[in-house]
Amino acid sequence: MFQSFTESADPSQGPARLAQLRTQLEHDGLTGFLIPRSDVHQGEYVAPRDERLSWLTGFTGSAGFCAALRNAAGVFIDGRYRTQVKAQVDLDHFQPVPWPETRLGDWLLKQLPDGGQVGFDPWLHSVDEIEELEQMLNGSGISLLACANLVDRIWPDQPAPPLGPITAYPDDLAGVDHAAKRARIAALLRTAGQESAVLTLPDSIAWLLNIRGSDIQRNPVPHCFAILHDTGHLSLFVDPAKLDGNLREHLGPEVTLRPPSAFAAAVRSRTGPVRLDRETAPYQLQRELSEAGVQIAWAQDPCVLPKACKSEAEIAATRNAHLTDAAAMCEFLAWFHAQAPGTLTEIDVVKALEEHRRATGALLDISFDTISGTGANGAVIHYRVTENTNARLLDGQLLVLDSGGQYLNGTTDITRTLPVGTVGTEEKACFTRVLKGMIGISRLRFPRGLAGRDLDAIARYPLWQAGLDYNHGTGHGVGVYLCVHEGPQRLSRVSSVPLKPGMILSNEPGYYREGAFGIRIENLIVVQDAPALKGADDRPMHNFETLTFVPIDRSLIDVSLLSQDEIDWLNDYHLACRDKIVPRLTEAAAIWLRDATEPL
Amino acid sequence: MFQSFTESADPSQGPARLAQLRTQLEHDGLTGFLIPRSDVHQGEYVAPRDERLSWLTGFTGSAGFCAALRNAAGVFIDGRYRTQVKAQVDLDHFQPVPWPETRLGDWLLKQLPDGGQVGFDPWLHSVDEIEELEQMLNGSGISLLACANLVDRIWPDQPAPPLGPITAYPDDLAGVDHAAKRARIAALLRTAGQESAVLTLPDSIAWLLNIRGSDIQRNPVPHCFAILHDTGHLSLFVDPAKLDGNLREHLGPEVTLRPPSAFAAAVRSRTGPVRLDRETAPYQLQRELSEAGVQIAWAQDPCVLPKACKSEAEIAATRNAHLTDAAAMCEFLAWFHAQAPGTLTEIDVVKALEEHRRATGALLDISFDTISGTGANGAVIHYRVTENTNARLLDGQLLVLDSGGQYLNGTTDITRTLPVGTVGTEEKACFTRVLKGMIGISRLRFPRGLAGRDLDAIARYPLWQAGLDYNHGTGHGVGVYLCVHEGPQRLSRVSSVPLKPGMILSNEPGYYREGAFGIRIENLIVVQDAPALKGADDRPMHNFETLTFVPIDRSLIDVSLLSQDEIDWLNDYHLACRDKIVPRLTEAAAIWLRDATEPL
Repeated sequence: MFQSFTESADPSQGPARLAQLRTQLEHDGLTGFLIPRSDVHQGEYVAPRDERLSWLTGFTGSAGFCAALRNAAGVFIDGRYRTQVKAQVDLDHFQPVPWPETRLGDWLLKQLPDGGQVGFDPWLHSVDEIEELEQMLNGSGISLLACANLVDRIWPDQPAPPLGPITAYPDDLAGVDHAAKRARIAALLRTAGQESAVLTLPDSIAWLLNIRGSDIQRNPVPHCFAILHDTGHLSLFVDPAKLDGNLREHLGPEVTLRPPSAFAAAVRSRTGPVRLDRETAPYQLQRELSEAGVQIAWAQDPCVLPKACKSEAEIAATRNAHLTDAAAMCEFLAWFHAQAPGTLTEIDVVKALEEHRRATGALLDISFDTISGTGANGAVIHYRVTENTNARLLDGQLLVLDSGGQYLNGTTDITRTLPVGTVGTEEKACFTRVLKGMIGISRLRFPRGLAGRDLDAIARYPLWQAGLDYNHGTGHGVGVYLCVHEGPQRLSRVSSVPLKPGMILSNEPGYYREGAFGIRIENLIVVQDAPALKGADDRPMHNFETLTFVPIDRSLIDVSLLSQDEIDWLNDYHLACRDKIVPRLTEAAAIWLRDATEPL
Repeated sequence: MFQSFTESADPSQGPARLAQLRTQLEHDGLTGFLIPRSDVHQGEYVAPRDERLSWLTGFTGSAGFCAALRNAAGVFIDGRYRTQVKAQVDLDHFQPVPWPETRLGDWLLKQLPDGGQVGFDPWLHSVDEIEELEQMLNGSGISLLACANLVDRIWPDQPAPPLGPITAYPDDLAGVDHAAKRARIAALLRTAGQESAVLTLPDSIAWLLNIRGSDIQRNPVPHCFAILHDTGHLSLFVDPAKLDGNLREHLGPEVTLRPPSAFAAAVRSRTGPVRLDRETAPYQLQRELSEAGVQIAWAQDPCVLPKACKSEAEIAATRNAHLTDAAAMCEFLAWFHAQAPGTLTEIDVVKALEEHRRATGALLDISFDTISGTGANGAVIHYRVTENTNARLLDGQLLVLDSGGQYLNGTTDITRTLPVGTVGTEEKACFTRVLKGMIGISRLRFPRGLAGRDLDAIARYPLWQAGLDYNHGTGHGVGVYLCVHEGPQRLSRVSSVPLKPGMILSNEPGYYREGAFGIRIENLIVVQDAPALKGADDRPMHNFETLTFVPIDRSLIDVSLLSQDEIDWLNDYHLACRDKIVPRLTEAAAIWLRDATEPL
């Protein structure tokens, strides 16, 4: 079982650890110290040794940070975690702070009217983060001081860095070998007059070198750093224990292996200009380069965009991963629909689904912790079921089931909202409006050059018309056997990144009625050049190919709310699900799928 | 007749005038001089004395500029004017430059490899405009020099500044008297710590003081400047010849009248901080303030947003103006539909429409030159018919008719696309898709805080699905007996200004097939708080009230492409047109309107 259901948070330890930290603050003459959730790679998942935030405070959410001062300790958490934080931290010692509504700088200004010196670990914060904070504190008497990590000094049994083996990713799945990728990025650097690029994002390096790692859960990336030279030569800073002879052969002579401890000095010794990404590079790298007098060329990590625009081979591989995953989902759904209301719990569902994915023989991990929320739990957008919250699925409820698998040939992410017994008309009306938005994006054709923010409204229009909406973006980027949350593309009002062919996105509108029920319907889609259309202008346009082939529950649809175009899309989609997935199913599941895909 | 159809451009004069200008350049030791289309108020319409661009080059478009160098003269024009400019300027002496694709800075860098000194009139360019250009030229050896206007020196019969009378705008139509408006804006200044605001936009001053002017066509605003003090007291810099005793009484003792010649010195004598809008204030004002050591507080003109959010009284007045205008439109349409194909020209249509508007007895001006384009002319988005281009309306063509009136109680802007005889199915399919987009916006309900760019896609989706689109925004702001193009709100991918109750916008999707036909359907709409809706979240939302009540030609609709919701909207809309407008019509027009508003 990949997923666990234990509540790892323990509010009881926090106060003593906070007291220890404060002893360190006094010893070092500091007024406070910042404890982010991030590690040096700024990813969504971190290794146990980097769980400093939860070790100190008890809070286990996937985003947030603590500002520990001598007489106050703010735990900054976003809207998803307002309830969770109250259960996980000792509220006599820690103060939850709504973030980003309250900015760290403003909070510090209020807490430290007499100024002070706030320490931070310069490896754990991005350049942007620190510079923004510095600007806010400018002239206030509060200064920031880069220093060694105080939590690491007081954490006696802090785990060691992970040493997960690294494996080669097959060239035929990637479509391009890493020599060609390095040559392509090096050419970008030469054009921009950049002597080298410092890479700190593990998925960038994994993509560039056609490798995968096993240092953290869910995201098959290796913890490492790299310097790509404008010659195409690359220095990889990684613990040698993670590599075997096969991998060394895969990397070849143009990739030089060096220990992580050599990284900072190697960065300092560049002639420059060195390309560095201010959104993701640790602040410490700016210090190293500035102290060494090396010119910095601020620009996005050069792998981010090429990685996002998947190759034909990657898309072909992902299509297959989705067929594998759809078969597992259908086996699960056939089983699920045979269970009587009141017999299953949320955890039963997670376990059964993971078992069906494992039964494919191809599952390497789940792509994130499955969200299985019934009734009111379904309205908690990032709900993660634990033994404490585990609810029984009762007649009349909706179950929001958001899950995905990591397969060698692709990363999946799918949400289906499932009825438990007989569901009310209000739920069905809302479900149908969410479906209309999801179909709106699926059918969308749009001019080249547009970004997520230019399209997001299409998914919301049917909800808006009924006075409804959802408080999250419509979609995120997805990798190919990489991170299930991948930038830079998004289907969101805040994203101005133009959508380009090969970008994989989720299409997941939802609706959440607090205390009552949740709804989300999610397929993955990939941007492509739109096929020619009779009568169209010669204007270049894109559309989306759908990758996910799992039926959408027809019993939840109020057909009177659908247009004929929408009915046609759904019937065509269900026919495709039947054609592609039936041959992969057991007989019982095939019978279920044939029934589930009957035309509306 | 407000509108004229003569071609004022005369390419023959340009070369001699350009030669004279070059003599001035040599005399002053300049390498070049910039001639914008704008006047000191940065408006869309300018007085005859400010028509420097057309006097020098022959080009009469409403946007563009000339960079006259010793050995080259670029006329920078946007996509609307690429064809027109070729007919209006002498191509042996002037070089059309596609703008904004080619930026002035880049063009200068290319034309002046050895550097040079380019003059400009610092009253005719905004702060932003000059600073952007300076940045582009930074380090190039090309410098900018603020100087007296060279065109004014060589234009022997340059008209004098206009002296159009100023009148008071009734308080009952404005809803608020000017003392209250001044107090409200002054409070904004005090909150921001600004001692005064310099106002250079005539429609801001007209709104603030409840006055209207007659210095230029189409826009009933007075050419003047103002300084609003944080006390609410205002200094108005205006030629006294424009004011009579009644107006002086209307302005009252808190408005001090001063001649325009005193403006610069008055700005210099402020204590500061002085609020100034870098997007619209003349560059010269920055120079005056900087030289005098007065602190500048850069911020948007404080009247822009309050003016955009119309008062209840203004909206009520505008509703009435639209009913008056709709009756005139319906009288015109009844007449139009009685004419046989081939009998009318585009100019006949403009004249008849203006006559019907005049017949209301309420028309003070047209709100812009009517666009009347049949067949291929309809595909020219900003077509303006002249005696030279005037086309006959032929059987099978579509006529795009975009027009509006200035009434004391409001400014209208309406586009209808009209069939001439029997129109083809392709035109009808495109018309119906444009209509679907227009209905989509009309029916839209959306969360508070969203901007035009978050909504623009709704109008385009039905066109996109067929591979079609239009190369203009979906809507612009509109004033109340003020400018028909008013900021800051827009329904456009480039507008991030949140839509607020009281903002009037146009809703005008279109489709243009070059060389064949054009389609545009336009109503004006006003943002309001959406009425309560059963089953809705308690999320604050807005919707639009439609102001325009003129039927949409049913013979152009392919009903099979409409959803039931869209059919319902159109039938309801037509019923409202009938109910509101029939009582205002002659019997013949009433018969026509009853027929035109029969349900689909």
